[in-house]
Amino acid sequence: MKETKIRLHVDHPLGEGQTIPLEQGQAHYLFGVMRVAVGEGLRAFNGRDGEWLCEISAASKKGGELTCVRQTASQAMPPDLWLLFAPIKKARTDFIVEKAAEMGAAQIFPVQTDFTNSERIRQDRLQAHAVEAAEQCGGTYVPPVHDLQRLDALLDKWPEDRQLMFCDEAAVGEALLLDGATPGPWAILIGPEGGFSDAERARLRAMPGALRISLGPRILRADTAAVAAMALWQDALGDWR
Amino acid sequence: MKETKIRLHVDHPLGEGQTIPLEQGQAHYLFGVMRVAVGEGLRAFNGRDGEWLCEISAASKKGGELTCVRQTASQAMPPDLWLLFAPIKKARTDFIVEKAAEMGAAQIFPVQTDFTNSERIRQDRLQAHAVEAAEQCGGTYVPPVHDLQRLDALLDKWPEDRQLMFCDEAAVGEALLLDGATPGPWAILIGPEGGFSDAERARLRAMPGALRISLGPRILRADTAAVAAMALWQDALGDWR
Repeated sequence: MKETKIRLHVDHPLGEGQTIPLEQGQAHYLFGVMRVAVGEGLRAFNGRDGEWLCEISAASKKGGELTCVRQTASQAMPPDLWLLFAPIKKARTDFIVEKAAEMGAAQIFPVQTDFTNSERIRQDRLQAHAVEAAEQCGGTYVPPVHDLQRLDALLDKWPEDRQLMFCDEAAVGEALLLDGATPGPWAILIGPEGGFSDAERARLRAMPGALRISLGPRILRADTAAVAAMALWQDALGDWR
Repeated sequence: MKETKIRLHVDHPLGEGQTIPLEQGQAHYLFGVMRVAVGEGLRAFNGRDGEWLCEISAASKKGGELTCVRQTASQAMPPDLWLLFAPIKKARTDFIVEKAAEMGAAQIFPVQTDFTNSERIRQDRLQAHAVEAAEQCGGTYVPPVHDLQRLDALLDKWPEDRQLMFCDEAAVGEALLLDGATPGPWAILIGPEGGFSDAERARLRAMPGALRISLGPRILRADTAAVAAMALWQDALGDWR
């Protein structure tokens, strides 16, 4: 079997001898764009059953079928890290979701803050970006992208055991970074480009599991801050060690 | 004087009472796009003399003039960090340069590796991205973007005292990250998306000041890897402490 480099996210269960029906969009991508043919191989994953080498067992314009051959990677879950961010311009919001998936966030929460301009997001589009990033980065997990909600509302129901690292431009010179932070469920909150309001900052600082950090003397864009903060977290507490 | 939030990079010297002629493009941006008027204030920096509050002292379609009022920030140089990267698709290359400026790289070197597809870059466009990022991030320094050159050629004349951290997908599970690394002149090398060739990897590993690191179990895109690696470096050895 000729193995292509294609990795495909599917919703269907994967297992020995399992067949997976292809949707029209997947068929178009595989047969129309990538020009793969019956008998060729690709890797499929569904976020639960690891990665499988699959053979294309049927192909048509409107669909097709994969057949699982063997498992090529076991399911790998990311550490229990949430990313909360205030949506910004479209391209940079897409980018943050892509980067969160690559960097190994477990869940992605777009949040509206007092100074967020964005009123709504296209949750389905953002989720598709997370899927594409997972296909590209070799992971077997796709982080769910939640619907936009008020930061307030999310903090109202905040889980007691989840620590929260929030990146605050106003923290330069006083921050301890992640020295001495303890592992466990965590969240990273990236503020909007206008910063947090005084009320938000006060509420965040008063949270028992909150850690305020600085990302240096230059003011980072939200997308840069998201990647930088996740890198520090993965290095200190996540799966990069 | 009404102070705008505009930060403008200029080439001219800045100092007490100094006047700065505006170029046509700057005049168009200030008077046509941002609609600022004579008598209003903005911040200017040139990469050498810190940041100055300036008053617009003349305005026309083809030019204008600023007058320095007082210094608002002293010149801050970034740590001695070079970023070397293999150019990729246009948008992501632009992005890497923007991020390098925000994250505090001192110099930016696009390099051609054995598996780099890109034959050339638009150095002037990339430099303009670095300027824009510096204007946006509040820094007073603009990293020079060098012309594209062969990685080989750059390594041939490598300064003896400059350590080199290179990010290698093949290093997962063996890397020590930056534990125990010592401060001083450094460079970060981000490989192309196809990875390093065996010859390149062997040469890099044999360099006395080289440190091979992993950025976790997922394969990061080059732009993500650049931000993540600079974050770890700034946190451990740079100006984030």
